[in-house]
Order: sequence, then structure tokens, then C-alpha cells
Amino acid sequence: MPYYIGDVIKDYKRLVIRTPEDFEKTGVHVKIKTRVEDIDPQKGLVRLSDQSSLSYDILVMATGAAAQRLIIPGADMEGVFVLRNLTDALAIKSYLNEKACRKAVLIGAGYIGMEMCEALRNLGIETTVLDILPRPVIRWDAEFSKLVLEELGKNSVPFLAETKPLAIEKGKETRLVLKTDKGNLDADLILMGVGTRRDMTLVKAAGIEVGASGAIKVDDRQRTSVPEIYAVGDCCEVFHKVANRWIYFPLGDIANKQGRVAGQNIGGTPAVFPGIVGAQSFKVFNLEVGATGLTEEEATLHGFQPVSSLIWGLPIGRPMAKGEKLGLKLVADKASGKLLGGQCIGEKGAIQRIFALSVALWSKLNIEEVGYLDLPYAPPFGGAWDAIHICAQELARKL
Amino acid sequence: MPYYIGDVIKDYKRLVIRTPEDFEKTGVHVKIKTRVEDIDPQKGLVRLSDQSSLSYDILVMATGAAAQRLIIPGADMEGVFVLRNLTDALAIKSYLNEKACRKAVLIGAGYIGMEMCEALRNLGIETTVLDILPRPVIRWDAEFSKLVLEELGKNSVPFLAETKPLAIEKGKETRLVLKTDKGNLDADLILMGVGTRRDMTLVKAAGIEVGASGAIKVDDRQRTSVPEIYAVGDCCEVFHKVANRWIYFPLGDIANKQGRVAGQNIGGTPAVFPGIVGAQSFKVFNLEVGATGLTEEEATLHGFQPVSSLIWGLPIGRPMAKGEKLGLKLVADKASGKLLGGQCIGEKGAIQRIFALSVALWSKLNIEEVGYLDLPYAPPFGGAWDAIHICAQELARKL
Repeated sequence: MPYYIGDVIKDYKRLVIRTPEDFEKTGVHVKIKTRVEDIDPQKGLVRLSDQSSLSYDILVMATGAAAQRLIIPGADMEGVFVLRNLTDALAIKSYLNEKACRKAVLIGAGYIGMEMCEALRNLGIETTVLDILPRPVIRWDAEFSKLVLEELGKNSVPFLAETKPLAIEKGKETRLVLKTDKGNLDADLILMGVGTRRDMTLVKAAGIEVGASGAIKVDDRQRTSVPEIYAVGDCCEVFHKVANRWIYFPLGDIANKQGRVAGQNIGGTPAVFPGIVGAQSFKVFNLEVGATGLTEEEATLHGFQPVSSLIWGLPIGRPMAKGEKLGLKLVADKASGKLLGGQCIGEKGAIQRIFALSVALWSKLNIEEVGYLDLPYAPPFGGAWDAIHICAQELARKL
Repeated sequence: MPYYIGDVIKDYKRLVIRTPEDFEKTGVHVKIKTRVEDIDPQKGLVRLSDQSSLSYDILVMATGAAAQRLIIPGADMEGVFVLRNLTDALAIKSYLNEKACRKAVLIGAGYIGMEMCEALRNLGIETTVLDILPRPVIRWDAEFSKLVLEELGKNSVPFLAETKPLAIEKGKETRLVLKTDKGNLDADLILMGVGTRRDMTLVKAAGIEVGASGAIKVDDRQRTSVPEIYAVGDCCEVFHKVANRWIYFPLGDIANKQGRVAGQNIGGTPAVFPGIVGAQSFKVFNLEVGATGLTEEEATLHGFQPVSSLIWGLPIGRPMAKGEKLGLKLVADKASGKLLGGQCIGEKGAIQRIFALSVALWSKLNIEEVGYLDLPYAPPFGGAWDAIHICAQELARKL
């Protein structure tokens, strides 16, 4: 008899299952606001915070990851948020509506920072982004960060580089003030988008093996080191096909796939999760930004000899282009000639290229082949030589 | 000493090489408005229409294909056009400007018909498309043709199905009248977009082998059956990686790649053209339409056992979607489980999917893998389960 232990989000209108009762109707028993205090794999038993315990034949760890909060004074004040799940989003929305917010500060210029600055600007809120690092979206090439920076500028979002938050206090003009090593920032709302953390206490106590990344080790069927215990999603590792090793890469689409694979295996239809190539994307105002595979730094760490090319091309055919830029960077391995990674940025067509490059990485294509890929050419969607071909051919000449 | 024989387009402003003299500066001798009457491979000689002849060490056949004109009375009247090259395009543009055209009829509902009806409507010209076939863009699934038909309707372009042009005559209200088996159509301009034809007389006389498709047979270095004679572009065949055979597939991006490969081989840097997967696309008003690989009919012809799924999904994440449709059809082989083809249509994101599927076909992925591809998920660009995953998983269940 399946059990679900955790919180059930009641406010998500599209979900058919909205309440514990809805869940029960599906034959799944639900215990909300209940913690698992201890797992006993020998007895097949979980002990719960309500003093009861549950026996299991199969246990699935789907504990995810939590959004990190900076440990600075005032980090828990009203108006200071993280954004991880729907509950967080709804809390932010209510706060914005109720408190007539005029100014927001986003700590961290990663995905959350980029996506939220657009959302907040669209609501007419003065928004500032800061980061302890020298540039936004640090995983991307510095040339691409520069374009993101320009896009922030065009949309009146100041970016404060190498700025360290020190404390949050009550404000005068605004509800809050963020004190940093570069001065004070007024804010009605402060959002921390500074990564995730996982609590592995329960996992380790149960004797479930944790990988080098600090997340739960699983095999390609999502089984942990402990028989009858599976793990899926942001609490576990995933196999990176390009790096050829297990890493931590917590993204929602990966979690979905892992859940399906675990479910199939538990249900008796053996299934294997083939792994990932590290595809990711975000939109910030009018820019599409995507990456897949390994960066040069990551490739070096994983023992490759990365060589790269970066070109500025056109997202559509030259006769139709109106000044749109498309930046594309490819990384290949000098030893094997294989494509290792790609990054793309532009007002249009960037994600289109990352879609293709992700499949090229999946299939372990070499860079010569990438230079001759048959892509669906028509002027509204690219040139007869696509940016992918041009960049790959330039890179092939460097190998 | 390289020679170029043929017409040089003088009106293309972006070309650095605009005149025979420009060409000469690059060290290439040019003979324009000159026909090759005969090729003598034994002597390495081409005889020209100006009575002179030229000797060669290497000969490249880049004779392309010509646009077909229907053989009906009046097909050569002023105001009746085909659209193959820039000269055609400029002639159409001049005619439209000078003759104050109000009405156009497009014969043929393939690429040319679809792209030109958009261009003509944008100029405010009343435009009708007709075809002898029952629906537009016949290579696409009937459900997708229906969406194209709706798009034509939204843009006030009537489509006349199963209509046979019989003759073109001088008109009264308009410059011309097209007589068909379904009645007469007034038109100031008539455009025939009914495919291409090739004249193989010269080729056959020279003893150059012609493939089953009727185009010049080449190997993967673009060499013909005759030593020192290469062929590239719309006059020759190309290797289709999915069909695993040489076929005729005349598209501009393929011609570009073949030219590069031939040039490298001639220049002493051996290069191989890896082939194509049949990727193609066009835009008609607000619809992106793409296809790659084989249709079910083609797959059957080539000895596969095609199984297909067609889904209507979303081009972007559900919470961001505003009613945009995305149609995706995948074809796989029952015997091998391999992906054989894909078609996609929608207001946005259709070509993005065809980019990815083209690389999947290139890499001979099976449909199970396609169902788990790692694609760059973010709500502005797709769902956590992309339409590709959903369609591939549905199809995998049918195998």
C-alpha cells in the first residue's frame, strides 16, 4: 500500500490531487506535515515524527533539496525570501500584493536571479541584482555574461558585482535595508537565489551510500546502495554522459525522468535512466540563454583537453536578419575530437541550437560531424550554413 | 587555372563578386552566357557554344536544376513566372512594382507556394493557391496540412484543391486569366511552383553515370563515375543516412556542403560528405513547419516497418502557454526500434524540435532513447517533459 510522506501543496489549481483526501482516492495514503525521523532498512521500517512507524517493501527517497539561505543577521526577517517551490512563489506573490513593494534586491545572479528580475521588472518594481562573483551567470563564457549584463542594463536592472551581503535590517524609506561590503541597499523585498543545500543526516544514518558529490548514490535504475531503497530527484546523483561519471545536477526535468524510471522498476517493468548531458536554459527579458555539456573548466576537471571556439553569427538567414545577434561557443576534446559542450545566447534561436547540440552530445558526435549536421534550413530559422556548422568547422581546424 | 562557366548574377548587392571582372581578380576566369556543348573526358576538354574549347584537369558539374514550367498554352506569357534563382526573384519584384498587380495565383502548394503567398499577402496582393493534389504541403501529415490550410484561411488566401491548370490567356479585369478544370481565375501574376527538372543530355553524352533518381551519381567525395569529374548541388544525388541509400534531395544547404567537400578534395585535403537526414523547413505566415527523416510512405518504400504517433502538445511550459499549439509526429521502425522521421508544426518551437530530431536521426537513436533525451528545459521553451519525450514514449509503447 503506497504512502506519501511530506507536504501536499494545496494551492496549485491545475493539480487534480490537491488535498490529502484527493490523494487517498488514488489509493495513496498521505501523511502531511510528518517527518521521517529514522529509517531501519533491516526491518523495512520508517519511524515518524508522530511516534508511529510504517513498514515498507520499497522505499523511495524523493526528499529534494532546499534553497539555501545566507547565514547573515536578519536573514529570517519578513520580506526575505528564497524561491524553491510553489509555496515560496505564492508567499512572494502575496507579499508583493499586500505590501505595495517598490524596491527589490536579488542576491545571486544565477537562474533564480535572472528569471526573477524579469518577473519583478514586469510588475514595475525597481530591481537590483548583486552577486559575490564578478559577473552574472558565471557558468557561461565571459562574452555571454557581458550580453546578459547589457540586457539587464537595457531593462534598468543594476548589477552589483563582487558584493557581499552582510546583514538585513529594518529600513526607513523601505521595509528593509541590505547592508553589504559596498554599502547599503534599500529594499521592500529581498530574494536569495544562492543555490541549494541537502540534509543527508537521515540518509547517512540509514546506511545509504552518499556519492562524492554529497548526494545519494544511485544506479541506472535509481536504486541506492541499500536494497529496496530507491532515490530520485534533487537528493541523488545522476550520470553525466559527457563527463562519463556520476555528478550532482539538480534540475526539474531530470527529476521527472528519474521518477518515471524508478516507478517503472518498482512496478516490475525494468527501465534504465540513460543519463544526462547537462542541458539547461533560461530566459532573461529578450534573451534566450542555454548551455549543454561541459564548460572548458569542467572538461579540464574531468580529464579532457578542451579546445573552444566562440562565434557571433545570425539566428536567421542574412537577408531576413535585422541586427539580431547569436553567440555560440563550442568546446571539443583535443585528444578524441569529440564535442564536449556548447553555449548559446541571443534574442532568438539560441535554445534551438542547444536542442540540437544536446542530442549531438548524447550521441557522442565528433566536432567534424557537427560541422556537417543536416539541419532544417530555411531563412526564417537560420543560414544555409548554420551558426552550429560555422563554429564547429572553426573549432575542427584547431584540433 | 580555374574557369567558371555560366551566368553571373550582377544584381546581388551583398556579393563581393558581382561582375566577370570581379571574378577575374580572384584568379578565376569567367565565361558568362556560354553553354558547354560537349564534354570529352578522354581528352579532358569541354567544347563551348562560342566554338572555343577549354582543357581541364578537374571538372566540376554544378549545373543545378531548373524550375519546372507547366506545359499549358500561355505558360510563357508575360506575368507568368517560376521562382528558382535571384534573377527570377528580381523579375517578379520588378513586375509587381511596374504593373500595379492586385491579384496573384500560385500554382503548387509546396514550399514555393507557401513562402510566396506570405510574401504576396504582405504586399497587399489578393492571392490564391491551387494544387492538383487534395491538400497543401502533401509531404506532411494530413492533420498538419489542415493547420496550414487554417493558417491560409486566417490570412485570406483561398486554397483550391484538386484543381488542374489548363491554359493561361489575356484577361479583362486583370492582365491574365488562368483557366482550370474548376473554372477561371483572374490574375495579374501567375507563379508556378511545381518542382524542378534536370537536363541530363550533356551528362549522359559524356558517359557520366546517372543514378536511379535521374540525377548524377556521386561518391562520398562528390566524385562522379568519370575520373576527374566531380558533381555538387541539385544536379547530383546525395546519401540519405536514414534511408541508407542515395537519393535526390535538392536543397540549398546540402549544395553548399557538397561544394565545400568537393573543393577540399580537389584542393588536396581529402574530405567526406557524411550525408543527410532529410531535414527541411518553411514558414507560412505565423506557422513554423518542419520535417526530417522519412515519412511513413517513404519508410515503407525503403523497406522499413513504420509505426507513428502524432501528438498535440505545447511549445512552451504550460503555466506560460497562451493557447499555442505544437503538433509533433514521430515515425519509428518496428523491427529495429530506430527513429525514422519527425514532423513538427506550430506558431513557435517547431523548428527547435526538428533541429533536435535531425541530430537524433543522424545518430541513429532508437525511439526509447528519444523519450529520455536531455533537452534544455525552461518554461519559456518547453515543458519538463518536452513534446519530443511525450510523443517518443507514446510511440515506444506501440513497438
